[in-house]
Amino acid sequence: MKNIKDILPNNRVLTSPEELFCYSYDASSMEGLPSAVVKPASTEEVSKVVSYAFEKKAPLIPRGAGTGMTAGSVPVDKAIVLSLEGMNRILDIDERNLVVTVEPGVINAHLQGKLESMGLFYPPDPASMDFCTLGGNVAENAGGPRALKYGVTRDYVMGLEVVLPSGKTITTGVKTHKGVVGYDLTRLIVGSEGTLAVITKIFLKVLPLPEEVITLLCTFQGIEQAAMAVPKITASKIIPRTLEFMDNEAIKAVEAYKPFGLPSDAEALLLIEVDGARSSINIEAQRVADICLSLGAKIKVADDVYSRRKLWEARRAVSPALYRISPTKINEDIVVPRSKIPEMLNALRKIGEKYNLKIVNFGHAGDGNIHVNIMTDKNRSDEYQKAKDSVRDVFEATLKFGGTISGEHGVGLAKAKYIGMELSPLSIDIMKSIKRVFDPNNIMNPGKIFL
Amino acid sequence: MKNIKDILPNNRVLTSPEELFCYSYDASSMEGLPSAVVKPASTEEVSKVVSYAFEKKAPLIPRGAGTGMTAGSVPVDKAIVLSLEGMNRILDIDERNLVVTVEPGVINAHLQGKLESMGLFYPPDPASMDFCTLGGNVAENAGGPRALKYGVTRDYVMGLEVVLPSGKTITTGVKTHKGVVGYDLTRLIVGSEGTLAVITKIFLKVLPLPEEVITLLCTFQGIEQAAMAVPKITASKIIPRTLEFMDNEAIKAVEAYKPFGLPSDAEALLLIEVDGARSSINIEAQRVADICLSLGAKIKVADDVYSRRKLWEARRAVSPALYRISPTKINEDIVVPRSKIPEMLNALRKIGEKYNLKIVNFGHAGDGNIHVNIMTDKNRSDEYQKAKDSVRDVFEATLKFGGTISGEHGVGLAKAKYIGMELSPLSIDIMKSIKRVFDPNNIMNPGKIFL
Repeated sequence: MKNIKDILPNNRVLTSPEELFCYSYDASSMEGLPSAVVKPASTEEVSKVVSYAFEKKAPLIPRGAGTGMTAGSVPVDKAIVLSLEGMNRILDIDERNLVVTVEPGVINAHLQGKLESMGLFYPPDPASMDFCTLGGNVAENAGGPRALKYGVTRDYVMGLEVVLPSGKTITTGVKTHKGVVGYDLTRLIVGSEGTLAVITKIFLKVLPLPEEVITLLCTFQGIEQAAMAVPKITASKIIPRTLEFMDNEAIKAVEAYKPFGLPSDAEALLLIEVDGARSSINIEAQRVADICLSLGAKIKVADDVYSRRKLWEARRAVSPALYRISPTKINEDIVVPRSKIPEMLNALRKIGEKYNLKIVNFGHAGDGNIHVNIMTDKNRSDEYQKAKDSVRDVFEATLKFGGTISGEHGVGLAKAKYIGMELSPLSIDIMKSIKRVFDPNNIMNPGKIFL
Repeated sequence: MKNIKDILPNNRVLTSPEELFCYSYDASSMEGLPSAVVKPASTEEVSKVVSYAFEKKAPLIPRGAGTGMTAGSVPVDKAIVLSLEGMNRILDIDERNLVVTVEPGVINAHLQGKLESMGLFYPPDPASMDFCTLGGNVAENAGGPRALKYGVTRDYVMGLEVVLPSGKTITTGVKTHKGVVGYDLTRLIVGSEGTLAVITKIFLKVLPLPEEVITLLCTFQGIEQAAMAVPKITASKIIPRTLEFMDNEAIKAVEAYKPFGLPSDAEALLLIEVDGARSSINIEAQRVADICLSLGAKIKVADDVYSRRKLWEARRAVSPALYRISPTKINEDIVVPRSKIPEMLNALRKIGEKYNLKIVNFGHAGDGNIHVNIMTDKNRSDEYQKAKDSVRDVFEATLKFGGTISGEHGVGLAKAKYIGMELSPLSIDIMKSIKRVFDPNNIMNPGKIFL
């Protein structure tokens, strides 16, 4: 049988230790060395690599930019990493039909920038948008702050071209606004974390760019007031496009990492953005401001591109800032119904006290998606064990409030052992059977999602 | 083994010929007599019925209101009809989290009305909304005029409770705005036309009710001008909430059925609705009007509830009006990219000429979804055969333009023989294998979707 080096041109098959190391980790703290990294340049080349893995029953790890938080693209078992970073062309922007065709390696922010210059808008905006790939976004069903108003990646994927584990290619879905012929294979593959097929082309729906955006930085003297503002705003029939939350620890961490001018003395802040027609947006912003003011907030308005960008840079700096403090922190991604946020934050405080751990919270409060950061250090083994134990408490509280243990980061390796807390054995059995339909040899990202 | 009459209380198992006849058809022209009709009142009762069918390997046909257009709920093989019409409670309206829980038998318009009185909004609005059930909507992934701006049923289903063919119950999805734990079973079941499981509970996302709506009736002296207006409006970065199309034959049919005051001499009309904040909506309506005026349209504005309701009654009367003229007309539901509408309408005209058949077109032009009505009579067998032959031409043209053969009506029995024109054998094989995962005994709505 052929060697992997015979499948693709030599310079696109990496096997040196230094090169392999670069593909051994993601943004979680887990890692594993692959046996080879291959970089196909076309669907045909992907198909050749997959066929090879299928015959050899060799594990295959599809990978975008490796920005995932749950080790979804971390190699297991000396696997072959299939890096899609070279397939990074925007193939078509159909302005009249508001449909875009891209290869999986296109960086999210590249597409955003290109579209915005044309007056178009692709809403999903994970914090890693300057680095992460659209293929990875689709595999993980990525969210981001704007998911509150605009939904997640799934809501923009109209169809896919994928290479199945057999090496054969199918196109799923449609390039039209509607379509109901057969089962929805598109959305089955969205969020399947590379365990079903390799995505080689993506058909995305895009929107007209909103005319205007106003960003409000609202700082609160109590965490409860900030938490209470969230359901009050949505109950007032306004859906801002973002409604982001940072607690005092998160604010201080960001300011220590890079001084953006956030108010380090505030107990909590909300970063709220409304968008829409020029004529209506001021009214919405005023209503949001009134609610926050009534809860004692101080408000700063960013209504130009520069000041807005700076606020978002600060927001996106939270995760790297916390990693600098605790490189091996445990990062969770829970969601509760937004009305339960105050109770959930309270429960998190109690869990921190129980285990004597610092827990830093930030995230997408508008949709109830809180990134829970348990600050710990792998080198202090007692503390690290306590931190790992506390995760189960966090998930128990989350599920008690009607939530889910992952809002947008996926399961990967990091959460595989917990899915049974949320899903019934029967549901997991069905999912595993579906996996076998696609991947009888279990070569596609094995060990991810399911233990 | 038990008899079906032992499963549920007597008055909820129907077996008399008159009763069975009432459940033998839907809104397609196909029919088939069931062996029994059962009307469970709870998930537990559904489970009992399904377990019975599983043991007996008896075909089971879940059914809402029977308003489907593709015989999805028409019984085959002396099947048992499982009517969900009795499970019609709105279980919860969670205003703070914008989440609604319903049983499958709730009528779409009942939920809409209830929500609107609370300032909330459930967008999917199939033409049959006054009769059709939400369970049927989910099973078929129903659309409707407002899908243009707000998406289809799938985009509002957060999770489901379903009874599997084994009789066991699972809950899929989440009750939160986001969730990525495991494969997306929810959206696999949405649009699966009752072939995978019986839906017993639905968790729906709802929105704040838009402040204001303006409806424009734009009449055109040429069909090309109306068709050209569609991509011009969306290219102008406005997404109206509806953009409905009727050709002259559709207009005349409605006026003959019930005089609503539509202009019978117009070659085509567009029914366009914009919604949003009070302060911005007039500007949007004006922009849409300007585009239509530049194409020679005459415009009537309906800005109060009464006149708006009348226009929509007229629009919803198209389908019944055409059935009165041709009770056995063939009704298709194609979608093309919206920029291809002018070419598609031209292709339809040529197909009509080729087969010497009258073809009446109306539908959701904004998203390229055209309801193609081939007017014919089953009793004129030569003509009827020609009409059936012409369907393949219609689908060929649709697919050539990058479209899909069904936008919102589903496949059912009526289109099962055509899905191979759109889907590859490999895609169909995967779907059938997924069906076997859920339904190894093939009891759930057999013969639907797949031949």
